Amino acid sequence: MHRIARVPASSANLGPGFDALAVALALYVEVEVKPRPTGLLVRAEGEGSELAAGPTHLAARVAMEVAGHDRLEVRVRSDVPVARGLGSSAALAVAAAAAAGAGEPLAWGFAVDGHPENAAASALGGLVAAAVVDGGPVARRLRLDPSLRFVVIVPERELHTNRARRLLPESVPREDAVFNLTRMGLMVAGLADHSQLVASAADDRLHQPYRSTMFPEAPALLSGLRELGSLTSCWSGAGPSLVGICRKADAAQVADGALPLMEKHSVKGRVLLLEPDMAGCQVDVG
Amino acid sequence: MHRIARVPASSANLGPGFDALAVALALYVEVEVKPRPTGLLVRAEGEGSELAAGPTHLAARVAMEVAGHDRLEVRVRSDVPVARGLGSSAALAVAAAAAAGAGEPLAWGFAVDGHPENAAASALGGLVAAAVVDGGPVARRLRLDPSLRFVVIVPERELHTNRARRLLPESVPREDAVFNLTRMGLMVAGLADHSQLVASAADDRLHQPYRSTMFPEAPALLSGLRELGSLTSCWSGAGPSLVGICRKADAAQVADGALPLMEKHSVKGRVLLLEPDMAGCQVDVG
Repeated sequence: MHRIARVPASSANLGPGFDALAVALALYVEVEVKPRPTGLLVRAEGEGSELAAGPTHLAARVAMEVAGHDRLEVRVRSDVPVARGLGSSAALAVAAAAAAGAGEPLAWGFAVDGHPENAAASALGGLVAAAVVDGGPVARRLRLDPSLRFVVIVPERELHTNRARRLLPESVPREDAVFNLTRMGLMVAGLADHSQLVASAADDRLHQPYRSTMFPEAPALLSGLRELGSLTSCWSGAGPSLVGICRKADAAQVADGALPLMEKHSVKGRVLLLEPDMAGCQVDVG
Repeated sequence: MHRIARVPASSANLGPGFDALAVALALYVEVEVKPRPTGLLVRAEGEGSELAAGPTHLAARVAMEVAGHDRLEVRVRSDVPVARGLGSSAALAVAAAAAAGAGEPLAWGFAVDGHPENAAASALGGLVAAAVVDGGPVARRLRLDPSLRFVVIVPERELHTNRARRLLPESVPREDAVFNLTRMGLMVAGLADHSQLVASAADDRLHQPYRSTMFPEAPALLSGLRELGSLTSCWSGAGPSLVGICRKADAAQVADGALPLMEKHSVKGRVLLLEPDMAGCQVDVG
């Protein structure tokens, strides 16, 4: 018996929703796990395939831990750029766990990453709220307008989450904490219904301003995405990817303008125009 | 021509949603405004009617400002306890503004109160997210499960919002700000669908722990409301009212147990079992 799991990438944080919100995006990693007579075999294609394809590969580690042995063939095929703020590790861990037969792939994604929101979006699909309660992940679906589109600027540079996180201060003005709570309410309302989404819904004082010191072009790119027609825009996860949240009718125009926008600011990379993923982790059993 | 406006009370904050969330409750203030040949006449009945019924009455002040003159008869009839954390001032201001013919009663409620969330719930009904953006109120409806019930403990003591607010620290650990963001996500998901509401959704580190110094019985009452069968429980606004958020089927049992619970902790007052209000400000033109 073998299983193939197909799992979406995700954008976490979404402006004010730092460590709290994430949306699943129709960009996928697929992991197949098959039994083998002896020894581990790992094959990887696509994004991240340049990383070591042995027992240290994240998908292999998760699959072996779930299975309890190493007599496995693990095949990974990914379209999710690595270390760009699109939840590639969480998606890969969720996919590997599900393909290895884990009952709760969210828990495995959370264990790898220490944060539940990307793993929750990858496991459940759609828009999710996630929290760590008593040391474990708790996730809930929130309403998501399926007509929204996400134009993602993916710069050709890596920003590792841990390094990005060290930029953040240990304490913050109460006023800034409240500022984010109020905008998060507007963001949740706007993602549920695009006609209610206001630009200020992505305002944030807890992480984006600090992260910009590592990516000084980010504020201009975020403004540029709005000028091109996004309803609002924000960092994706810990960056460096940036997301323009658009009406379906405006998405092509925003995507078309995003590469020239990057060129104008001398930022190399690519642009993805993505639908939300509403299904989350999908497993085929062969 | 005269107008009668009927406006619901509200519970703001709702645990983690400090200054960000509010729910309208089926407990009403009614304001009627009629033209008069000369001079102001103010009549008040019900809750708050012991307050000065002259030109300093909040409803009169708002109605005169909206009308631009004082040749008004203003009648107020309220079931909303004053200074108990149930948004009585915001509801009264919204009702007075609407009865005096204001186009945007939310703006008047916000002006009185300096915080938009109670006024937004009173004006729009249901569950609302609210923020101050560029100095003005922005409010959006969020999905609310109409089968939820709110058991409100209304202690016989006043806690004025300004005094309660001075207890709060100027800066907070970033971790606490994130804690509230994550729980607010769970709260919004749970209020949209009671089957998704977990007790931890009302966890809060930004205001309730500080407010408890003025109302030391509050934590035991909040736990007691959960033990009686509430899905979760939290302060209402700046208190002292406390809310148990219940399934419809459990609400009577929670309400029945709440008075003995108060007696056990030597807290005098009353208990209200309320439905959410889904209509907000309703105006009849005569």
